Amino acid sequence: MSNRKIILGIDPGLVKTGWGVVYRDGSEVGYINCGVIRTKAEDTMETRLCHIFDKISALVNEYKPDAVAMEEVFINKNFASSEKLIMARTSAFLAIAKHGYNIDQYKPNAIKKNITGSGHASKEQIYTFVRKILKIEVINDTKIHTFDSFDALAIALSRAFRY
Amino acid sequence: MSNRKIILGIDPGLVKTGWGVVYRDGSEVGYINCGVIRTKAEDTMETRLCHIFDKISALVNEYKPDAVAMEEVFINKNFASSEKLIMARTSAFLAIAKHGYNIDQYKPNAIKKNITGSGHASKEQIYTFVRKILKIEVINDTKIHTFDSFDALAIALSRAFRY
Repeated sequence: MSNRKIILGIDPGLVKTGWGVVYRDGSEVGYINCGVIRTKAEDTMETRLCHIFDKISALVNEYKPDAVAMEEVFINKNFASSEKLIMARTSAFLAIAKHGYNIDQYKPNAIKKNITGSGHASKEQIYTFVRKILKIEVINDTKIHTFDSFDALAIALSRAFRY
Repeated sequence: MSNRKIILGIDPGLVKTGWGVVYRDGSEVGYINCGVIRTKAEDTMETRLCHIFDKISALVNEYKPDAVAMEEVFINKNFASSEKLIMARTSAFLAIAKHGYNIDQYKPNAIKKNITGSGHASKEQIYTFVRKILKIEVINDTKIHTFDSFDALAIALSRAFRY
C-alpha cells in the first residue's frame, strides 16, 4: 500500500488566491498542480467571496487532500485591506472546514525558512526554491505559475516536510 | 396580495451571533422571532465558523427573508479580536451570499439613530426601543431576548424602515 500523502496549500487574497497541490511519498516530494483563483473588482463582495469558496471547495473534491495548509494572516496597518484579506481567507477556510478538515497554519517567516533556509526570503527566492524542489522545468503558463501559486506550493511543502 | 416583507438582521460575533426576524407590511412593522447562535471556546475555529455558517443558512431556509441586513464591522485596535469578529462575520455573510442575497449593511451609529433617534444610544436604550417598537411584552427567555438578539432586531428594523 502506498504511503503517498496529498497536500493542498492555499495563499488567500481577495483579488488572487494561490493554490498548490503536492505529494509526499516516503522521502520524496513532488508537484501535482497549482493555479490562481481570481475575482473581479467590479463584482460584489458577495460574488467574490462565493467564487473563492466554490473554487476551493471544488479543489478539495478534485484532489481529496490528506492535509490542507494555509498561511497565518498578515497583520497590516491598513485596516480596510486587512479586512478584505481576512474575508477572502475566511471564505477559503470555511470551504475547507465544511469538508471536515482542520487547517494547518504556518507563519509567513516559518514558510520562507522551510523552503529557502531564510525567514526573510523574497518572493523571487521562494519561487526559485519551490521550482527547484518540485523540479518544475517548464513554465508554460505565466497565469498559473505565478508568485501566488508558488507561495501556495511553498505552504503545501511546509506541511509535506512534516510527514 | 400582501405586500408583507420579511427581514433578517444579524449581529455577528464569534462567541454570540444575534439574529432577529421582523416584518414590514404597509406602515406597520412587527416581531417574528429572534435568538442567539452560540459557539464554544473549547471548539476549534473550524467547528465554530461552520456552526455559525450552518445556523445562518438554516435561518434563511426557515424564514425565506426578502432582505438580509448586517452591521458594518467595528474597527478595533485589538487586531486579534477584530480578526475573530471578521471571521465570524464573514461566515454569516457567506451563508447568506450562498443563497443569492446581497447583504444590506449599516454603520453602528446609523442603526442606533434609526431606532432611538440618537447615534450614541447605549445597548440598554436599543433594547428598550426595540422592545417598544416591536411590542415585545413578555420576556420569557433571557437566553433568547438578549442585547445580541435585540441588536439584530434593531438592524432588521433599520432595513424594514427603508421599505
